Amino acid sequence: MDIVHNSRKKVEKLQEDVLELIKRGTDEILVEAELIKKLEEGRPLRIKAGFDPTAPDLHLGHTVLINKLKQFQDLGHEILFLIGDFTAMIGDPTGKSVTRPPLTAEEIAKNSETYKEQVFKILDPEKTKVVFNSEWMSKMSAADMIQLAGKVTVARMLERNDFGERYSSNTPISIHEFLYPLVQGYDSVAMEADIELGGTDQKFNLLMGRTLQGNYGKPQQCTLTMPILEGLDGVQKMSKSLNNYIGIRDEPNDMFGKIMSISDELMWRYFELLSFRPMQEITEWQKDCQGGANPRNYKVKLAQEIIARFHDEAAAVKALEDFEAQFKRGAIPDDIPEIELEVIEGGYPIALLLKEAGLTSGTSDSNRMVKQGAVKIDGEKLGDAKLLVQAGTERVYQVGKRKFAKVKVIA
Amino acid sequence: MDIVHNSRKKVEKLQEDVLELIKRGTDEILVEAELIKKLEEGRPLRIKAGFDPTAPDLHLGHTVLINKLKQFQDLGHEILFLIGDFTAMIGDPTGKSVTRPPLTAEEIAKNSETYKEQVFKILDPEKTKVVFNSEWMSKMSAADMIQLAGKVTVARMLERNDFGERYSSNTPISIHEFLYPLVQGYDSVAMEADIELGGTDQKFNLLMGRTLQGNYGKPQQCTLTMPILEGLDGVQKMSKSLNNYIGIRDEPNDMFGKIMSISDELMWRYFELLSFRPMQEITEWQKDCQGGANPRNYKVKLAQEIIARFHDEAAAVKALEDFEAQFKRGAIPDDIPEIELEVIEGGYPIALLLKEAGLTSGTSDSNRMVKQGAVKIDGEKLGDAKLLVQAGTERVYQVGKRKFAKVKVIA
Repeated sequence: MDIVHNSRKKVEKLQEDVLELIKRGTDEILVEAELIKKLEEGRPLRIKAGFDPTAPDLHLGHTVLINKLKQFQDLGHEILFLIGDFTAMIGDPTGKSVTRPPLTAEEIAKNSETYKEQVFKILDPEKTKVVFNSEWMSKMSAADMIQLAGKVTVARMLERNDFGERYSSNTPISIHEFLYPLVQGYDSVAMEADIELGGTDQKFNLLMGRTLQGNYGKPQQCTLTMPILEGLDGVQKMSKSLNNYIGIRDEPNDMFGKIMSISDELMWRYFELLSFRPMQEITEWQKDCQGGANPRNYKVKLAQEIIARFHDEAAAVKALEDFEAQFKRGAIPDDIPEIELEVIEGGYPIALLLKEAGLTSGTSDSNRMVKQGAVKIDGEKLGDAKLLVQAGTERVYQVGKRKFAKVKVIA
Repeated sequence: MDIVHNSRKKVEKLQEDVLELIKRGTDEILVEAELIKKLEEGRPLRIKAGFDPTAPDLHLGHTVLINKLKQFQDLGHEILFLIGDFTAMIGDPTGKSVTRPPLTAEEIAKNSETYKEQVFKILDPEKTKVVFNSEWMSKMSAADMIQLAGKVTVARMLERNDFGERYSSNTPISIHEFLYPLVQGYDSVAMEADIELGGTDQKFNLLMGRTLQGNYGKPQQCTLTMPILEGLDGVQKMSKSLNNYIGIRDEPNDMFGKIMSISDELMWRYFELLSFRPMQEITEWQKDCQGGANPRNYKVKLAQEIIARFHDEAAAVKALEDFEAQFKRGAIPDDIPEIELEVIEGGYPIALLLKEAGLTSGTSDSNRMVKQGAVKIDGEKLGDAKLLVQAGTERVYQVGKRKFAKVKVIA
């Protein structure tokens, strides 16, 4: 009896661990009880995640979802990486959206390859099935589309936040925009997905898949939403246009520098969503920091894990060495004074500039420092003591090892 | 100069006559100036009217539109009689509407034949092109449908009265219902229609055709809406379910009787919408009646025209003869008293019933009348003076030539 009891306890513990891993960093699971049932079936589940082949240049924000797929993959489930080529080939029929031009089959094929190249830094290509929804959607007739559209009401569609807001504010919604969530939902029907993953902004569309599967008499998928990752500023979502991102294809040293620049708070968030280290370990490190350990040391660990993932171990080691070497050489501190000077005709004399910026005691001190080779502009040693700095420039001036100023010369 | 002037005047008069004929009975023409331009081109215009193959049993209400097609046909234009088989084969995907079950191809073929049989009593089959929208719609892909849906906004669709009301009152609208007007509109694109005819309730859909033609870079159709015909009661719209209709396949005597039963006011309305006699003539008859002529005589003319159209001249003549013969034999007047009697156990004795109904002075008078053969029940002579009338019956009792009563015996 005791052996049976213990063995059952072990199984329960194992299931708890699995569920804990799946729930790590997630925003919402619908419906958790159903997910547990599916997991208990013991078969490999069909995990769907859809991607738009229009933006193949990924950053760490995109990988939050892919990391979750990786976790499912490591648990032995089947990853169905869906590329939404059908809708991409249609683009925006109204022609109003410049960001959604229709793509040709060639462009999509090329984008898909770029996509795969990037996601296979995380996912195991052997265990990932890449599917294209044109496979079933291009065979669908207008009559089938009408049948599909009969499954959902206008009111339900206007419940989607963005549609509701646009309708209320009289911002036109084209009818085809109502059809895209139906197509995305129908993909789940065609793929017989057990679980669909997406960002929190995709919740409505994911649930549409669940609804339509029910309508077509199929078992219904569970949905799992992942949060949108904050950018380097820790406030806005990571995005290229906000320039607060770490690109998957960034150089190792850039990745390192960017990660070292984030706040301590954001570091723990990134650990949860971007690291594959166990949460238990991360929690302990957090305690260490509360006990006085330097967070910088953990930021280094995070940076190295990320660089190793997208480049390799050697690159991670080298990035750390470069960083430390630069640090020893005396890197530019974060909080240097910023000064604006009005240009003098012909240019601002460097000796005067250094004095006005408070880096020397006077112009003769300035000249002496230049001659000693102790003056740098943007990290480059200055040789010419008679340099005239032109209007429109903004540079970091350094005297000796400790004195810095950013000076903007204006017209 | 005078000859040219006169000839131009003649042409103008001719055009005015044509326009007057086209405008006869119409509710609205959009846009009239464009219609005039099209007419001036001198070529046969492509006149579209769409019909649902689900209800092939036509009544005069349906013919208002077909009569207008006939007028265009007589003016030398090309009639495109569109049978909406594509949408009929889809039916109602929500499965909620019992009145819109999907039809099989066989049912549609059969219904279409029944349709043609009936409309070719009015239209010349040689000059009418029957088309089915499955011809182009069954070739349309889901991608084409999405493209089509991109041409119109949700707000525009909710402008349609019934959609707007349903949305406001939280009555579900399925998204496919938004696609049907698009399909109907696309028919105009595929058919290159110059003018589309429909009932006033179809105005939104007709204008959709106009919009979509513009979107697809084609010349835009004009729309012409015809009013909904009132039924025999002169108030409600003619419909089978209200039992206020004259069916195209009604027997000649039924047609005659029904038309003779309508109000004088309704008669003139029917003349305008159902007769092919010139309006000038009809207006003169109206004046005659104002001057004291008996409207009944004109009702007979209307009845005869209708019967001749759907049966033949001989049937029209015979229906009039039968009607007059019946009238001479003493038809039942319209305004006989209606009486309710509570049944006596075993049945209500006929002699007592006739007395209570005020048709005789007493039961012995009743018995005498029955014996003389002067009593009729629903027009049938009564022989049995001991008849017991049962509860639940409602019959017209007649004594002699002039005395009538409708008596209902209740339990």
